[in-house]
Amino acid sequence: MENKDWKEECAVVGVYNVTNAASMTYYSLFSMQHRGQEATGISSSNGEKIVTIKKKGLVTEVFDNESLSKLKGFSAIGHNRYSTAGEDSMADAQPIFARYDLGQVAIVHNGNLTNAKEIKQELIRDGAIFQSYMDTENLIHLIARAKQENLVDRIKEAILRLKGAFCFIILSRKKMFVIRDCNGFRPLSLGEIKNADGSVGYIVASETCAFDLVGAKYLRDVAPGEMLVFSQKGMQSYNIMPSNPYPCVFEYVYFARPDSHIYGNVVYNIRKAMGEELALENPIEADLVIPVPDSGVAAAIGYSQKSGIPFELGIIRNHYIGRTFIEPTQQIRELKVRLKLNPIKELIENKRIIVIDDSIVRGTTSKQIVKILRDCGAKEIHMKISSPPTISPCYYGVDTPDISELISARMSNKEVCEFIGADSLSFLSLEGLKRSVGLKDYKFCQACFDGKYIL
Amino acid sequence: MENKDWKEECAVVGVYNVTNAASMTYYSLFSMQHRGQEATGISSSNGEKIVTIKKKGLVTEVFDNESLSKLKGFSAIGHNRYSTAGEDSMADAQPIFARYDLGQVAIVHNGNLTNAKEIKQELIRDGAIFQSYMDTENLIHLIARAKQENLVDRIKEAILRLKGAFCFIILSRKKMFVIRDCNGFRPLSLGEIKNADGSVGYIVASETCAFDLVGAKYLRDVAPGEMLVFSQKGMQSYNIMPSNPYPCVFEYVYFARPDSHIYGNVVYNIRKAMGEELALENPIEADLVIPVPDSGVAAAIGYSQKSGIPFELGIIRNHYIGRTFIEPTQQIRELKVRLKLNPIKELIENKRIIVIDDSIVRGTTSKQIVKILRDCGAKEIHMKISSPPTISPCYYGVDTPDISELISARMSNKEVCEFIGADSLSFLSLEGLKRSVGLKDYKFCQACFDGKYIL
Amino acid sequence: MENKDWKEECAVVGVYNVTNAASMTYYSLFSMQHRGQEATGISSSNGEKIVTIKKKGLVTEVFDNESLSKLKGFSAIGHNRYSTAGEDSMADAQPIFARYDLGQVAIVHNGNLTNAKEIKQELIRDGAIFQSYMDTENLIHLIARAKQENLVDRIKEAILRLKGAFCFIILSRKKMFVIRDCNGFRPLSLGEIKNADGSVGYIVASETCAFDLVGAKYLRDVAPGEMLVFSQKGMQSYNIMPSNPYPCVFEYVYFARPDSHIYGNVVYNIRKAMGEELALENPIEADLVIPVPDSGVAAAIGYSQKSGIPFELGIIRNHYIGRTFIEPTQQIRELKVRLKLNPIKELIENKRIIVIDDSIVRGTTSKQIVKILRDCGAKEIHMKISSPPTISPCYYGVDTPDISELISARMSNKEVCEFIGADSLSFLSLEGLKRSVGLKDYKFCQACFDGKYIL
Amino acid sequence: MENKDWKEECAVVGVYNVTNAASMTYYSLFSMQHRGQEATGISSSNGEKIVTIKKKGLVTEVFDNESLSKLKGFSAIGHNRYSTAGEDSMADAQPIFARYDLGQVAIVHNGNLTNAKEIKQELIRDGAIFQSYMDTENLIHLIARAKQENLVDRIKEAILRLKGAFCFIILSRKKMFVIRDCNGFRPLSLGEIKNADGSVGYIVASETCAFDLVGAKYLRDVAPGEMLVFSQKGMQSYNIMPSNPYPCVFEYVYFARPDSHIYGNVVYNIRKAMGEELALENPIEADLVIPVPDSGVAAAIGYSQKSGIPFELGIIRNHYIGRTFIEPTQQIRELKVRLKLNPIKELIENKRIIVIDDSIVRGTTSKQIVKILRDCGAKEIHMKISSPPTISPCYYGVDTPDISELISARMSNKEVCEFIGADSLSFLSLEGLKRSVGLKDYKFCQACFDGKYIL
Repeated sequence: MENKDWKEECAVVGVYNVTNAASMTYYSLFSMQHRGQEATGISSSNGEKIVTIKKKGLVTEVFDNESLSKLKGFSAIGHNRYSTAGEDSMADAQPIFARYDLGQVAIVHNGNLTNAKEIKQELIRDGAIFQSYMDTENLIHLIARAKQENLVDRIKEAILRLKGAFCFIILSRKKMFVIRDCNGFRPLSLGEIKNADGSVGYIVASETCAFDLVGAKYLRDVAPGEMLVFSQKGMQSYNIMPSNPYPCVFEYVYFARPDSHIYGNVVYNIRKAMGEELALENPIEADLVIPVPDSGVAAAIGYSQKSGIPFELGIIRNHYIGRTFIEPTQQIRELKVRLKLNPIKELIENKRIIVIDDSIVRGTTSKQIVKILRDCGAKEIHMKISSPPTISPCYYGVDTPDISELISARMSNKEVCEFIGADSLSFLSLEGLKRSVGLKDYKFCQACFDGKYIL
Repeated sequence: MENKDWKEECAVVGVYNVTNAASMTYYSLFSMQHRGQEATGISSSNGEKIVTIKKKGLVTEVFDNESLSKLKGFSAIGHNRYSTAGEDSMADAQPIFARYDLGQVAIVHNGNLTNAKEIKQELIRDGAIFQSYMDTENLIHLIARAKQENLVDRIKEAILRLKGAFCFIILSRKKMFVIRDCNGFRPLSLGEIKNADGSVGYIVASETCAFDLVGAKYLRDVAPGEMLVFSQKGMQSYNIMPSNPYPCVFEYVYFARPDSHIYGNVVYNIRKAMGEELALENPIEADLVIPVPDSGVAAAIGYSQKSGIPFELGIIRNHYIGRTFIEPTQQIRELKVRLKLNPIKELIENKRIIVIDDSIVRGTTSKQIVKILRDCGAKEIHMKISSPPTISPCYYGVDTPDISELISARMSNKEVCEFIGADSLSFLSLEGLKRSVGLKDYKFCQACFDGKYIL
Repeated sequence: MENKDWKEECAVVGVYNVTNAASMTYYSLFSMQHRGQEATGISSSNGEKIVTIKKKGLVTEVFDNESLSKLKGFSAIGHNRYSTAGEDSMADAQPIFARYDLGQVAIVHNGNLTNAKEIKQELIRDGAIFQSYMDTENLIHLIARAKQENLVDRIKEAILRLKGAFCFIILSRKKMFVIRDCNGFRPLSLGEIKNADGSVGYIVASETCAFDLVGAKYLRDVAPGEMLVFSQKGMQSYNIMPSNPYPCVFEYVYFARPDSHIYGNVVYNIRKAMGEELALENPIEADLVIPVPDSGVAAAIGYSQKSGIPFELGIIRNHYIGRTFIEPTQQIRELKVRLKLNPIKELIENKRIIVIDDSIVRGTTSKQIVKILRDCGAKEIHMKISSPPTISPCYYGVDTPDISELISARMSNKEVCEFIGADSLSFLSLEGLKRSVGLKDYKFCQACFDGKYIL
Repeated sequence: MENKDWKEECAVVGVYNVTNAASMTYYSLFSMQHRGQEATGISSSNGEKIVTIKKKGLVTEVFDNESLSKLKGFSAIGHNRYSTAGEDSMADAQPIFARYDLGQVAIVHNGNLTNAKEIKQELIRDGAIFQSYMDTENLIHLIARAKQENLVDRIKEAILRLKGAFCFIILSRKKMFVIRDCNGFRPLSLGEIKNADGSVGYIVASETCAFDLVGAKYLRDVAPGEMLVFSQKGMQSYNIMPSNPYPCVFEYVYFARPDSHIYGNVVYNIRKAMGEELALENPIEADLVIPVPDSGVAAAIGYSQKSGIPFELGIIRNHYIGRTFIEPTQQIRELKVRLKLNPIKELIENKRIIVIDDSIVRGTTSKQIVKILRDCGAKEIHMKISSPPTISPCYYGVDTPDISELISARMSNKEVCEFIGADSLSFLSLEGLKRSVGLKDYKFCQACFDGKYIL
């Protein structure tokens, strides 16, 4: 399920050479709302001035016609944030805007810098001040202090100081710059927009579902280590770092929308393949396959097709979840998961059920799901997870719980199974994961599963 | 899809003899949010005084701990409204509260009175004033003017004047009254709550999904023509009208949540059966079955299981739809349906697709869906509707468009197929619908499909 | 001071035959905001339909261009409310709108019906239902039930049933009706508007300061017992009750804005005369005369001019008082009056001070004012009140505290003086009040001062 | 009048060693709301962490119990801002918070740095980035880049780089620093708070009216060129710049609340003296003296007392001015000043009127005031201004219009008189202003009147 255990991990978008670029940015952010619901913001430039509006709330809550009308211009960048740390949360929404010696700049960022602390300390030692708690501020300082003369070279110089996972989109008054780290940890795709006057515009976004909504054509992914520069002269590409791709495999498991292309594959198909692998690896006799909606659906369909065991939408999800709930009464407190999920008793009663979920983090949600199915009279409950056990935290842009909270980091699968109360529990193997992705050269970051960090 | 063509048709709930009844009412309304998103309200009584709070917005937006803390007492009633007519929309939220000769009363209503106009004219001729545009106000006037001495008799007398579809829940300071029309057009179920002190509380709600969330036990449906009276003496039942059940079959087709029991059947199963019937009635060769989410999912699963054609979630729904959108740019305006729905091109390209939707009202949404699938490169698109053509408006509580807007009322299926641009189009037959519901004695209101109104 | 002891007592306005009547109504309500800050509302008619918007908040908070754009038409009525009783406060804002046998009607009311309870009981016995806690609802019921055929006669018949203080403005789709009770307790003035096309429009408002703002010409007061009917034929006047004027003298003392004409006199001048009388009646040696701002200013100027003792604005008022304050710290709690009022120590130190206030209700505010002046080092503090002691509650439209809370109802002036801690205390005499008003035939309701109720 | 021609010029406050310092800061900001209504903010420290909340709106709108409960600790600083430049107005509210090599810091500022541009350019050349449009950001950079080791020395070093008008209050986690420029352009006073436990707390604020509200005792002004350091050791004073006091005389004329002490004098008395001087310098026969409220009141009282011509509050001010108004109708547009000011015709008709206002900036408001008095039938209108003609802009913290908009910079008094339509116009002379202030050694910045800038 889209549980709160995984903090999602931001969406970025940049639009260049499009009339009313902020409007297209708005729709793109809307389509990527699943990557961050806490805060959102847009900066746009009309060539003379960069204007920024950012606020806590969903895209459709933060922006209206009036606010968008202030975001004029042919280029714009936007950001959805999954959560804001600190009391002064406004300071931690993006884009970050600053003036410096070459003019004005606004930046959005998806990722996590592993040397942020060192760079920050160095900058601070050197007299820099930080007005937010975001890593992103580092980059602006580095650009402002870079020795090179023009902005392209400055950005290169600054970027080369950074380690970790990053997709940056940088807006100056006239240009837009896009950089993806050399490992390509986080996804970033490039699309093309045909303007009414025949000219060509560009869009760069974390997920391709944004392109579909705004009618852009997917061109390709931004390459690991690549910098794209958009200017009046069009788009130019620079390889500023030697590419060594290790994209995050968890985008396939959970983060991305199933209709997005990530690293060239459509997510839905990979998820289905995970379910199929799961069926091959861990076959079990059962009457039904049901997903934990929405994130387990594709894998459950795959499992069902491969195993021949019927697929049923045996748990119904309520999508009207609001930001806040009143203090529940005693009757309700125990089964908080029911606010989102309700099983269909008639399907489940006296049945042997295979339940498909994408991952287990703390185990508490799975435990509640098993309980509500058990209460429906399920004869057997077999929990199957379409990814390997999560044993290590992510340092490349996903806000995972502390390792002490990762249930698979401290329990065997058998113990986890007991904890959640299922009759059986199985995870997809690392090999199965690899097969699901189906690439000849499987080279993904899967540190959350195997603890091998390449940085 | 849950399109805007069908206005949903309100939810009612009543809770009696439960500590903090308003809190349970709040959760019940939350679970029935799909039946009305425009306005919501709760009245509660502590035995001395009835307090009402109602407002435009979703349940989680309108109520918070502070407002719920004002709704004290052991009994409460609540309402979700699908839309509010008129500029002074506040006056058209429910519950309606009034003082009259027997004290205070609050009422919620799901349904539509077919003789509302006549009764209103008569009441108005007799000096009554109407402060809202809701039929419900009629009932309060009738009760206030009834000749009988006690409230039970008054309500009976008043109810007998009414024709049409109605589920009323009436709260007085000490008691709660529940009445369902003799045809039982709209669903209404009765549940039981075990209090911590061993005493028994009651809940009455439009859908049983409310019971699941609050931990109530489903007892039975309120019978057509029945009045339930809840008081310190417990629950008493009166048959105040001769029962002649004609419940709305469209609850199965579209309105109800799949996990609810309606008229004793779980909705999901009926919808699956509709899909199975569709597969039997209109078999066609194809590569995939995909639903228009979320409402077509169960039928698509049924179709797939019966036909053996694989089920895929080929269209992804964005659930973050907000109340308002900015004016779309030219690029986006054409494909408004994309704000909600995005197809997965890789699944659809070069495939023969069976698309399952629950119904066609104006045809415009279907036309857009066909177009976005066609744009994905579908080889063939076969639209299959899990209900018969909608040819007549509903007068029993569903806000249907004017008959001139019902595409099947003025076009043959072939013409509709051409209009929406599909390769083929088929509807479930009336017989198939009957078989799907699967009752020996099928006696449902299906006036929207056959134009036969029993009133 | 404009203390919270006196609840102010509503403003009404009606505009007829003016393009965009709601806009003029908005400005009129704004100019009369001092008469009620709790809630506000406007109903307008375009001849076909009456639309109402009402809400809690100040005029400038409740209405904006968007909401006013919904209030179309050539006629409109509006209301400011000083407070709303009951939890369901929305139901107690005005205008009240209803449909009845002659069509649509909206009503605003300033006043208090002394036989409201009896009429309500009678109506309720006769089957009426009440959806608010406002007396005003009575009138709509009476009109709806009146036997006469046309609306003019119906209103007459209904009005004749009412006792007490009332200024009603009634809007039908085509006409506007204005009625003032036969005693003329509450003020109501008639003005004329020259339209751009040469035609004549009308405005009726509680205070003439509304006319000044919207550029209307004051014609005359609505006469006690008069009904004005505005229609396409212009304005017609009916004497529907024998006139017996007893207007409220307290409008002069406190309620009205100093720049308004009340009963033909400008309020500022009357207040100055009260100060002059006070100087004549209770001369005392002192160094300074200072008002409790803003309500004591005019009387203090009068006192100063008559006595020759210099006037100083020795207490400064903070006008930024918001709706809510955070819980004050210990340091601040003791002197809550300081949030509004701050004395200028340098003026007061070692001086013999005459402080002028309009009235004393509970005495607690006066006590705090004396204390803060004493803390400034005043040598003597002589409190002088520009009205007689308030000994009786008002039943004619002013929300006074219970008689047990009126300090002068249970203490002698000497005791009150001790309670508030002043060196001396004097009130204007009833004779002095009469002289201040300065009419040959002084015939005012002064029941709050003498306990003589004419009804 | 408090016209929009003068932008007011911010308030600052700092509180140290007081339980719940943020609450006292809140009340202080409330009492200084007249110095800035656009935005407000508070930072507080509990010794471990600085928390900041800032937002557009009035003090009572921005803060409530919930937000103040997040501002824990024994020290706090606050700011009211008169206006925010730029679209991204949030970034331009204060306090500004930053982390730098010595830890955390928050700063508030009242004033204007005359070398802000040069310093900013130098900083930017040196790699600094600016995230707001506020001069204040300079200081944080300078402190962060200062060579000295401890914060006290760093602040000194940084401050010595700055030229212009400034009152800074700087909050670190443990300490609070207060600095006033060597000319003391803007007011800043020091007060003492007796805590319940006998310990002593401190408050520093732009105006002493803040002390009155929170019960603090005025100790003295912060001296020009002084730095105060508040720490666990108590308060220490440093003279960091040679003092050369030139405080702003316009605080006396208009900005400060009349009940505040500015530079040791109570403002009300100085304003009265200005009115008295005006009467001596420019005697004229007339029937009445009336102020433009509220800012002209004290001078009008002084004029009246000196001349013997009666004082009347002949223009009434509506204090319910909201943030936004609907588009006025044609009838109202012409006399926008009426939204705030309404004359009392009866006082003015056929009278020779002396009108006292504090200053004339563009002349448009004065012109409207003359017109509405003329419309009342005034026989003669003599406008008298309690300050000399404003001929030069302020560079020391007041946001004056461009010199081309200052009517007295481009017109003779005679021409201004004609423009506004008065029968006569006179200004206080520079000598008269000096006499009003009444100090032996008059040494004030009066560059707005004489164009002599000391920097």
